Amino acid sequence: MPLNQQIVLDNRPVGEATASNFRLVTAETPPLADGQVLVRHHYLSLDPYMRGRMNEGKSYAAAQALGEVMIGGTAGEVVESRHPKYQPGDRVVGMGGWQAYSVVDGNVPGLLRRVDTTHVPLSHYLGAVGMPGVTAWYGLVKIIAPKAGDTVVVSAAAGAVGSAFGALAKARGCRVVGIAGGADKCQYAVQELGFDACVDYKEHADFVSLSKALKAVCPDGIDGYFENVGGMVLDAVLLRTNAFARIAVCGMIAGYNGAPLPLANPALILVNRLKVEGFIVSEHMEVWPDALAELGTLVGSGRFRPRESVAQGLEAAPEAFLGLLKGKNFGKQLVKLA
Amino acid sequence: MPLNQQIVLDNRPVGEATASNFRLVTAETPPLADGQVLVRHHYLSLDPYMRGRMNEGKSYAAAQALGEVMIGGTAGEVVESRHPKYQPGDRVVGMGGWQAYSVVDGNVPGLLRRVDTTHVPLSHYLGAVGMPGVTAWYGLVKIIAPKAGDTVVVSAAAGAVGSAFGALAKARGCRVVGIAGGADKCQYAVQELGFDACVDYKEHADFVSLSKALKAVCPDGIDGYFENVGGMVLDAVLLRTNAFARIAVCGMIAGYNGAPLPLANPALILVNRLKVEGFIVSEHMEVWPDALAELGTLVGSGRFRPRESVAQGLEAAPEAFLGLLKGKNFGKQLVKLA
Repeated sequence: MPLNQQIVLDNRPVGEATASNFRLVTAETPPLADGQVLVRHHYLSLDPYMRGRMNEGKSYAAAQALGEVMIGGTAGEVVESRHPKYQPGDRVVGMGGWQAYSVVDGNVPGLLRRVDTTHVPLSHYLGAVGMPGVTAWYGLVKIIAPKAGDTVVVSAAAGAVGSAFGALAKARGCRVVGIAGGADKCQYAVQELGFDACVDYKEHADFVSLSKALKAVCPDGIDGYFENVGGMVLDAVLLRTNAFARIAVCGMIAGYNGAPLPLANPALILVNRLKVEGFIVSEHMEVWPDALAELGTLVGSGRFRPRESVAQGLEAAPEAFLGLLKGKNFGKQLVKLA
Repeated sequence: MPLNQQIVLDNRPVGEATASNFRLVTAETPPLADGQVLVRHHYLSLDPYMRGRMNEGKSYAAAQALGEVMIGGTAGEVVESRHPKYQPGDRVVGMGGWQAYSVVDGNVPGLLRRVDTTHVPLSHYLGAVGMPGVTAWYGLVKIIAPKAGDTVVVSAAAGAVGSAFGALAKARGCRVVGIAGGADKCQYAVQELGFDACVDYKEHADFVSLSKALKAVCPDGIDGYFENVGGMVLDAVLLRTNAFARIAVCGMIAGYNGAPLPLANPALILVNRLKVEGFIVSEHMEVWPDALAELGTLVGSGRFRPRESVAQGLEAAPEAFLGLLKGKNFGKQLVKLA
């Protein structure tokens, strides 16, 4: 069996996460038991939710245990199988974690999903045609539920979720406005992703200023908002919401380091009769087939060409992850492992 | 025609509303045109929403015009009619405003509603079997939608909306916990209204302390919350919400004077996958028949005995209204006009 490289959570962050929270270890790969499959990971997915898992205490998911391999989505190939459903060479997606190989029980439903790479590159199953894409789909379709002509806004617009949101909303005839950090990301959102407009929040010192910029590009107000970041961006958007606007709360990355992240004016929820709903896509597995079918078609047909930021090698994962938390990535952040 | 007494909005509040914002005037009652009805008001309803109307600028409703009769719900009797549908002596409910008489166009649907006072006293049509009752019903039934056994919480529990909420939630088999200002109100909520528990927010200096008190009386967490006040109470409740809890936002009375009312930890919306929805009951006229039928039965059968605070005479309305904003009332705040 091949020697495995793994990154474990060594200690918990105090405030900002740092590279020293992680530790690279080498481990034997155990021989396969009956029903098990050995997967070689080609790509590791890095996602903001992982930061939440690094904290102790109550969140929507259990904390990542110290000394254990960091949780994470992976795409790879079966290299050895003692399960009749899987053959060496099969392309598969799973939650293999921050490591080069994983041993998976082929009998547990949902642990491993075989994917077709004829029209969709393997890596996209971790992004546009994977969890981030379905996340965008759920928030847009199930919470915001826009009509054609509605104005919808998404923060972290150039990221994996934001870019999928843009493609899905444009396909529904919406006016789609992004919010992102940096002129380059905004340019990418408009020129490559097809957003109607994008506002660089870094050009604004406070939510009032950002809100004015939003007004300029959302002349008919905001009917739906997909929230990835929280903080001043949410305050700015709330000021521009129309009556009965819907807000899907998927992430509040600005608060992951434990800093307080108050909302300045929650009374707008009443004044504008808003619906604000938090969700976690893994609790809505029933929508995955429909969502993946639409996303696969958008990507396979070339109408949605998601960008990826790819770090090389497992040892690069911690720095790539910290960069993701600071918004250094363009599109889906991956680590190439093989 | 009788001489009419009216209270008009004389000037807008700067910060807190004061009695000097209002002015009492005397006016002729114009002779009835064809199709019109003259109503003598027995009761004027005082409600927190009126404070919002006194401000200039954007809210969910147009501002009250200066120099015009203050808006308000009224219950009274027809004293003269030039409309075939109404006869002198009919008991009617409408939006007659802060005045002794109103002239109503009987042809406009919804302006005047004839009510049956056989089992339900006239005044209750402004409270438990009127707008406040339907408000409680909408938030409970349409937004919180509890199952039997759920724990639901309401702020301003001893008020007109809160007490109706308690009765409706008990009828659905919920554990019902109130939040109110003062030991006397809490005692009333538990002993007379049938709440399972009530927390006096005035005993707590901050939301963390209030939250601990809520934990003690909500050992299984909070599944639904009906928000009337905002501020520290909302922060305290959010800390105790269960996954997938629903929050109906009906009022944020704590912010009506223009003071900032930030929410300390909106990230809980995501962490606990909450649904937070603002609403105004007048935008949901379709539920009124069902809601009024249930409320009328609860009151008529004596299972719900709502209390009223009744001020005497139109000239007492401003002080009674200011007292309502400070929570001085027990149950529905009314002004007896005749």
